[in-house]
Amino acid sequence: MNDKRKRIEVCFTPGEYTYYKDEFEIVVVIDVLRATSAMCTALDYGIAAIIPVPTVDEAWAYKKKGYLAGAERNGKIVEGFDFGNSPFSYMKDEFIGKEVVLTTTNGTKSLEVAKNAEIVVVGSFLNLTALSVWLSKQDKNILCLCSGWQDKFNLEDSICAGAISDHLISTGNFISIEDSSIAAKYLFQSARHSFLGYLKSSSHRRRLKNLNLNDDIKYCLTPDQTDVIPILRDGKLVKI
Amino acid sequence: MNDKRKRIEVCFTPGEYTYYKDEFEIVVVIDVLRATSAMCTALDYGIAAIIPVPTVDEAWAYKKKGYLAGAERNGKIVEGFDFGNSPFSYMKDEFIGKEVVLTTTNGTKSLEVAKNAEIVVVGSFLNLTALSVWLSKQDKNILCLCSGWQDKFNLEDSICAGAISDHLISTGNFISIEDSSIAAKYLFQSARHSFLGYLKSSSHRRRLKNLNLNDDIKYCLTPDQTDVIPILRDGKLVKI
Repeated sequence: MNDKRKRIEVCFTPGEYTYYKDEFEIVVVIDVLRATSAMCTALDYGIAAIIPVPTVDEAWAYKKKGYLAGAERNGKIVEGFDFGNSPFSYMKDEFIGKEVVLTTTNGTKSLEVAKNAEIVVVGSFLNLTALSVWLSKQDKNILCLCSGWQDKFNLEDSICAGAISDHLISTGNFISIEDSSIAAKYLFQSARHSFLGYLKSSSHRRRLKNLNLNDDIKYCLTPDQTDVIPILRDGKLVKI
Repeated sequence: MNDKRKRIEVCFTPGEYTYYKDEFEIVVVIDVLRATSAMCTALDYGIAAIIPVPTVDEAWAYKKKGYLAGAERNGKIVEGFDFGNSPFSYMKDEFIGKEVVLTTTNGTKSLEVAKNAEIVVVGSFLNLTALSVWLSKQDKNILCLCSGWQDKFNLEDSICAGAISDHLISTGNFISIEDSSIAAKYLFQSARHSFLGYLKSSSHRRRLKNLNLNDDIKYCLTPDQTDVIPILRDGKLVKI
């Protein structure tokens, strides 16, 4: 069989990345609620770069050196920091042109896990179409790495990954062979008419709703608000 | 909130079991293609007990002691053994009343992982309704542990787990709060009208089809062929 199609696959959690990683040149890190949505927003609003770090200690060390630094754990801003991973935090004039350090519960962990891939980009509903179109032109094998919630599967990242897969497969140049990818595509297809409705019972949405973060949720689930594609270069996320 | 409902949740792979295990009294181990289907069939056809072992070496040691022993790896019978995990292997008069040792790629691994739970039972499409009805009467928290394929998510186990969840939730006495459980239920609901059609692109079905195991697949995906519920007692699977 002479099949020149590239693969588009979905890995549901950072913990499973080890079973997938060697076959893909591009990794798309996804943490819809809210890290990767915040990253897309930040670069869209003129922040020069985001420096993702896995631990609060590292974020704190940067803060002491004078960097703008944010930290989120379990949906809340970590004490001593001025912002976390709400996209709205990054829509500020005083952030324009600056480098911002960020650590989050799940999203920065996936970036850490994936950092040695040839190309690491950041995906969310906010940059869905722009990212999918760019990916479709790369002629490389692509893995969507969902950040999940504390190493467990989560629904919103999987649906976003399913949306990217659906787009790429529709070009005819990509295939999925992993069951996780097939499931993600099915989940996206059932959810596509109302992400918010579909996710009403999701654990993370419930968690954020309890923290009065409903505006964040609505924003993060609204596709195509930006054309920005963050890419990891020398440890920093910058516009592609 | 005074909610007396018990939980029914789904864990997609044995590797993630550690993030779920402490909250459930009953674990339902599922490996639709084909270990847990074979186990249900074996007890239905009169085999007294199945002794699941995680390694081929352990199965071999039993075989040398005179036990009937089967071993499967990657869909094939391991060299030196007379049978693997095809349900049809267990429909034999000479097996009736005997204890049979079995090791398989994924299913016996999940049993090993779950063995310290208060109650461990075995699920498949073959015993779907009988198992669901029994579970609904237990008034305990239940985790469906999917065996996956080499530590990755698989579609057929997840759909079977979704079917069990769907049944239990419909009684009004159970809830799911994990995203994995919600996804499994959605996948089952899209697949319910034709498991075989839905799974046509699944990786494991493709793998077994290539090994000429289509009859096994059709059998394993046909619900309610037995009322047998295998339960783990002192390291052996016996009828409940």
